[in-house]
Amino acid sequence: MIKSRAAVARAAKQPLEIVEVDVEGPKAGEVLVRIVATGVCHTDAYTLSGADPEGVFPAILGHEGGAVVVEVGPGVTSVQPGDHVIPLYTPECGQCKFCRSGKTNLCQAIRATQGKGLMPDGTTRFSYQGKPIYHYMGTSTFSEYTVLPEISVAKISKEAPLEKVCLLGCGVTTGMGAVLNTAKVQPGSTVAIFGLGGIGLSAIIGAVMAKASRIIGIDVNPAKFEIAKQLGATECINPLDYDRPIQEVIVDLTDGGVDYSFECIGNVKVMRSALECCHKGWGESVIIGVVSAGEEISTRPFQLVTGRVWRGSAFGGVRGRSELPGYVERYMKGEFELDTFITHTMGLNDINKAFELMHEGKSIRSVIHFDL
Amino acid sequence: MIKSRAAVARAAKQPLEIVEVDVEGPKAGEVLVRIVATGVCHTDAYTLSGADPEGVFPAILGHEGGAVVVEVGPGVTSVQPGDHVIPLYTPECGQCKFCRSGKTNLCQAIRATQGKGLMPDGTTRFSYQGKPIYHYMGTSTFSEYTVLPEISVAKISKEAPLEKVCLLGCGVTTGMGAVLNTAKVQPGSTVAIFGLGGIGLSAIIGAVMAKASRIIGIDVNPAKFEIAKQLGATECINPLDYDRPIQEVIVDLTDGGVDYSFECIGNVKVMRSALECCHKGWGESVIIGVVSAGEEISTRPFQLVTGRVWRGSAFGGVRGRSELPGYVERYMKGEFELDTFITHTMGLNDINKAFELMHEGKSIRSVIHFDL
Repeated sequence: MIKSRAAVARAAKQPLEIVEVDVEGPKAGEVLVRIVATGVCHTDAYTLSGADPEGVFPAILGHEGGAVVVEVGPGVTSVQPGDHVIPLYTPECGQCKFCRSGKTNLCQAIRATQGKGLMPDGTTRFSYQGKPIYHYMGTSTFSEYTVLPEISVAKISKEAPLEKVCLLGCGVTTGMGAVLNTAKVQPGSTVAIFGLGGIGLSAIIGAVMAKASRIIGIDVNPAKFEIAKQLGATECINPLDYDRPIQEVIVDLTDGGVDYSFECIGNVKVMRSALECCHKGWGESVIIGVVSAGEEISTRPFQLVTGRVWRGSAFGGVRGRSELPGYVERYMKGEFELDTFITHTMGLNDINKAFELMHEGKSIRSVIHFDL
Repeated sequence: MIKSRAAVARAAKQPLEIVEVDVEGPKAGEVLVRIVATGVCHTDAYTLSGADPEGVFPAILGHEGGAVVVEVGPGVTSVQPGDHVIPLYTPECGQCKFCRSGKTNLCQAIRATQGKGLMPDGTTRFSYQGKPIYHYMGTSTFSEYTVLPEISVAKISKEAPLEKVCLLGCGVTTGMGAVLNTAKVQPGSTVAIFGLGGIGLSAIIGAVMAKASRIIGIDVNPAKFEIAKQLGATECINPLDYDRPIQEVIVDLTDGGVDYSFECIGNVKVMRSALECCHKGWGESVIIGVVSAGEEISTRPFQLVTGRVWRGSAFGGVRGRSELPGYVERYMKGEFELDTFITHTMGLNDINKAFELMHEGKSIRSVIHFDL
């Protein structure tokens, strides 16, 4: 049992409380890691808002971390103390039906317990004043020390700066991977990216890496256009500037529609626009955003019968343990940058400020450094 | 100008009238053909019902024919008199953006005129008592002689029986092609086929050719199960036998869902079931059926984010001139049969009987032989 500084979510809609929690050592198949840095993501805020049907409290949120292995439990063979890792909210066991299929990154090995805020054995490693605290997304990176299943860590190069590549634990990989892995955008393609937050900007980077020839950013907030263009958007448009559906505008701009579109917001109406701005015959639209319970997408089936394809992407379709280290390598080789995303850095004590900045639309990512 | 026996649709909801129409010879880029046999398809009935927004009258319907070239217009090089052809309502010019893409069969070269019942030069070749009669789907196979754009004929083997392979002009290719071309079903896959009419039965044949290991037929009319099993369905289920959504039943039956599903009816609720019975992570659903104007499909976006893919298929994704001759060859080699589909044959004078049989659900296909 060790002590760990952590931001605890006692209940929905309450500020996080910075306290010292107790962390049990790793059991069989688990690893104890020290979180060096963690991003604060919209999904953390979504759960904290109380809207997440799987949200359990009290819990330690956080799922976008960079960490160092401190101790491994019995049977752990793939990492050892001192290894640098990125926690994975989408694990990769390599043995379940999903992993073996070779067709998806959605490993289901520990789905049931992870969704309940528990380790695979059905218990929690966190407690405060003797009372249990739940895990979150199998990661709980808002604690300096956290326990993770072995299948939920991606071992990465020790050269990589953890306070930057932590962003590959969620947002940046989600956007880039949707373009590179899920859609497999081809060189010379035309791409539309709806929503220019962290995911949308990452999708732009992915589209640049895929050598797309035209990258159209769409957002109702033109303040985001400059950074989008800096990252590689070839043009940006604001739906509020037009008095007709934005999909029609894009179809006209692109001689029939785009080859690929990405919805990076979580708005079912935008999802429809993203599908319908695709080119007849072959355009593919990828849904990345997450919507509230009960919301539905719709369109005329003719849109699909005439050749458009509607799909989705979770964690960019990236298999965490086998593919994420390669993304880190590409970052280290300079194929893409992360600094643009990190608009704020702060210590754990200021984490509620990070949520405020996000709610106010003032940050792309705030990164919490545990040594600040 | 030649005389031709034809079934003319004078107006929506009226029986076809058998008369002798005048057919002008082929202009530049056109061919005059003699229709040997033609199937009667639901799409003909749909247009005759008045529900088709593109329906124009008076017209000569029919789009599932087998024919012999009689005369070619100036500039025609790909066929000559005596060649056997299948008329194509989806042409293949080889030069438009769509054909050149290599990604779709939806050639758009003559889309505008075809939708108005006209040849590419904007005029019609049919008349009766001096008044123009419109073409239909660029094919008008309910006339013994009909004029087609050169890009709207697929030259096939002279050995193939036209009174059978005419079915490859629409229904059978639509179902088989959706499985083989659009979905590219892999050997060993699990497949669900919703609707066991002509399209659904053709999809079963396609699934057998693709070596699917499990082929589940779904229909509310169990009278269709015997023929479905005869063609290769490994099991058939009736949604009316269950008191919960059929997608849940199929997910349970298949340990998580099917690899591929096909909607062969044209019902937006069934389209949703077909998507949602697909396996998380990789299941793909293909919409083949056509719905009424204004109807929409819907689902929770989570269905796509967790790895299902929603697509559609028209004419089975088959490029008529370059790929349909290969389907005829496969038929000639005995890879599939067509006799099961042909439940009735009759002469042109009985064509209204064919529509009746279809409306009453008593036929799969009635084939009109012009020499009967």
